[in-house]
Amino acid sequence: MLRAVRIRPVNTPVTVPRLTTALSGPLPELERAILSATPVIEHWLRSQWQEHESPFYCSVDLRNSGFKIAPVDTNLFPGGFNNLNAEFQPLCVQAAMTALEKICPDARGAVLVPENHTRNQFYLQNVATLAKILRQAGMHVRIGSLIPEITAPTDVALPDGGKLTLEPLQRKGNRLFVGDFDPCVVILNNDLSAGIPAILRGVEQSLLPPLHAGWALRRKSNHFEAYREVAEEFAGLLGIDPWFINPYFEQCGRIDFRERKGEECLEGYVAEILDDVRAKYREYKIDAEPFVIVKADAGTYGMGIMTVKDPSEVRGLNRKQRNKMAVVKEGLQVQDVIVQEGVYTFEAVNDAVAEPVVYMIDHHVVGGFYRVHTSRGKDENLNAPGMHFAPLGFAAPCSSPDPDDPGCPPNRFYAYGVIARLALVAAALELERTAEALEEVEAPAQASVAE
Amino acid sequence: MLRAVRIRPVNTPVTVPRLTTALSGPLPELERAILSATPVIEHWLRSQWQEHESPFYCSVDLRNSGFKIAPVDTNLFPGGFNNLNAEFQPLCVQAAMTALEKICPDARGAVLVPENHTRNQFYLQNVATLAKILRQAGMHVRIGSLIPEITAPTDVALPDGGKLTLEPLQRKGNRLFVGDFDPCVVILNNDLSAGIPAILRGVEQSLLPPLHAGWALRRKSNHFEAYREVAEEFAGLLGIDPWFINPYFEQCGRIDFRERKGEECLEGYVAEILDDVRAKYREYKIDAEPFVIVKADAGTYGMGIMTVKDPSEVRGLNRKQRNKMAVVKEGLQVQDVIVQEGVYTFEAVNDAVAEPVVYMIDHHVVGGFYRVHTSRGKDENLNAPGMHFAPLGFAAPCSSPDPDDPGCPPNRFYAYGVIARLALVAAALELERTAEALEEVEAPAQASVAE
Repeated sequence: MLRAVRIRPVNTPVTVPRLTTALSGPLPELERAILSATPVIEHWLRSQWQEHESPFYCSVDLRNSGFKIAPVDTNLFPGGFNNLNAEFQPLCVQAAMTALEKICPDARGAVLVPENHTRNQFYLQNVATLAKILRQAGMHVRIGSLIPEITAPTDVALPDGGKLTLEPLQRKGNRLFVGDFDPCVVILNNDLSAGIPAILRGVEQSLLPPLHAGWALRRKSNHFEAYREVAEEFAGLLGIDPWFINPYFEQCGRIDFRERKGEECLEGYVAEILDDVRAKYREYKIDAEPFVIVKADAGTYGMGIMTVKDPSEVRGLNRKQRNKMAVVKEGLQVQDVIVQEGVYTFEAVNDAVAEPVVYMIDHHVVGGFYRVHTSRGKDENLNAPGMHFAPLGFAAPCSSPDPDDPGCPPNRFYAYGVIARLALVAAALELERTAEALEEVEAPAQASVAE
Repeated sequence: MLRAVRIRPVNTPVTVPRLTTALSGPLPELERAILSATPVIEHWLRSQWQEHESPFYCSVDLRNSGFKIAPVDTNLFPGGFNNLNAEFQPLCVQAAMTALEKICPDARGAVLVPENHTRNQFYLQNVATLAKILRQAGMHVRIGSLIPEITAPTDVALPDGGKLTLEPLQRKGNRLFVGDFDPCVVILNNDLSAGIPAILRGVEQSLLPPLHAGWALRRKSNHFEAYREVAEEFAGLLGIDPWFINPYFEQCGRIDFRERKGEECLEGYVAEILDDVRAKYREYKIDAEPFVIVKADAGTYGMGIMTVKDPSEVRGLNRKQRNKMAVVKEGLQVQDVIVQEGVYTFEAVNDAVAEPVVYMIDHHVVGGFYRVHTSRGKDENLNAPGMHFAPLGFAAPCSSPDPDDPGCPPNRFYAYGVIARLALVAAALELERTAEALEEVEAPAQASVAE
């Protein structure tokens, strides 16, 4: 099904890292092509990290349809570190050490700025896990909250029996503090959906990731634009059709779902992408029904997402559907929308539909899990209430000395780690290119962008 | 027992990485001091790696007497990767990736040059494990043997059922090849006890570690000299007596055991060190009998080592003892000897005496195991026939949120990882300082130094 692979296959039983996956069937051709090109791929990735600075951390939602593996969401403020297998902690610590050495060798203290959730116990457990990773990497760590009600150190109980101490983030001049603690680096785990708070603007300390990585300024279309370039270069390297790793997408601006403005743009692109995908399915003799995903260009948490199989569907939205699409997290109005080729997931955990999520710190794969949904279909967004997580574990090393053993599960995960790292390269490019947007809003330091 | 720790203890449940150890008793004061100073220690180590280049890999034999933790052997050509728990493979791969990125981002191909053993199945399994780690880090890897009898690709069966292909290492001009494979980097797993072969001299490619890390030129006294400085700086940082992490040592040159030359020097230093240790034991109210270890200054494989408790013992050596001390690996004559304070080991695995061995790739701790000997005492060298290995495993994360929980085994391993990394810093310094010795022997490229 794939086009000829130019580079010759080599004997490399490779995984980064060794994980078990839910799949145990034969290794599809795409994964096999990726696996056999490992030295070429790793060499190419090394050269990317010579040229571009990796985001501090990242999680990537992937979909694997058997004929296609693609990133569908690249999160630069990953939650869910608590969902990683505890066995991965040393990998996380080592990668965090590598990141801190590069970014700020002198850093002794870090402040972690979380989302403004105090009731989401799972999220708070994620913050505690992140703090632990940074402490194990040798940092003093305190949690600096943006919540106005947090005016003094406040202990919050955690599901694992521990506690997390939230303290008010404070500013003196151009430096951020927590009490008398003056951190060298501020690590953001807040995606800034509500805008960039004044307290974070024009700060002297390094902010990781930078402010323009937040949804106040970030756009999915910039990311997938960069990913398209990365995927094309990578596909050229492997001699495969880039479509196998890159879903089609288009962007529609100035949409107003409530006022029914911009529906024509949506309908047009939905039709165009469905046609393009149908042509590819024909070319590769794939027997499946094309679908597209319509989602907010700036948004997260799986809100404002719908599955569409016919252009007419976006015209006839009822009130409830329109309201659902109109607003994402923190009441942010949806104005720009992307239409993206849908990728079926053919992974399942205990018969429930699943998609792999890969976690990275610096440019190292440090773990992952399956997002599982028992009441959703393989053509639907799984990041929705009712989902649960199945942590990936280390795989027992393959006993067979034959690296081409198609049933060897660690081999399968390697391909996921590669595609996730392509999305990470794209995120690095995206952040380079959008740095100017931040400069535009940085002054004056008093106002907040999303007010 | 320790002197006042200047830095204040912080809440850091730290391990690099999380390992289980054989000990489950209360955490002695020294380990506790190291643990509570984690952010300071990691910050200091980060600054060391800004200034010095880490050896490519290293294993360090440690002894922990409860009141003292010290490195007793720092191996720059570690064998035994096969003895690491398979769970550590991802940590090894990540660290190898980091090392290769720094040292040679363009490297696609590596040749691994092993020891000239063809019958030691365990050693060959180590070579296979190393090759696998490098392949998983994305390198093409072939094994270039120095064995004269290997004139064509030769398969050797491995204990795990796999096979290893040894190929003759060849030279064309100033480059090393294996067949038509032109590697960017040559990784030595041969400690050059037999001298530096002409084929390796003046080579264009990077050799990792460099030739002067081999026993043809290396001296333990240079290493422990550098370690003394590192230990003093580190002890100053923690406000502890450097003796807690640094055994006394002295060097005697021009020894000839067979001709009984230089015995006076030995006897003198043995007496001096025993006196010094006795004084320290008195100072810290330690109820134990001091002993020293006499060993070859250039040597490995646990050969040429003896335990001495009284100066008179080195005078009255019988013929057998003298022969044993006179020659180490590959028939290398012992001329220089070091006398080193002995450190009791109070670790035991199933009632047998044990000492921890810590493995590092680049400057990251990637695993370890216990060297266990059922028929040796806690004051004897355990690197001897009859030893076996107990791999360290990942510890279950401590359920207790109290990082000061003295029974929390991961905490214990952190101290081992710190002392092993001090030895690694010392090795980096040692290699910087001895680089000139290599230049002296590099020309002419035709002769071999140890002939």
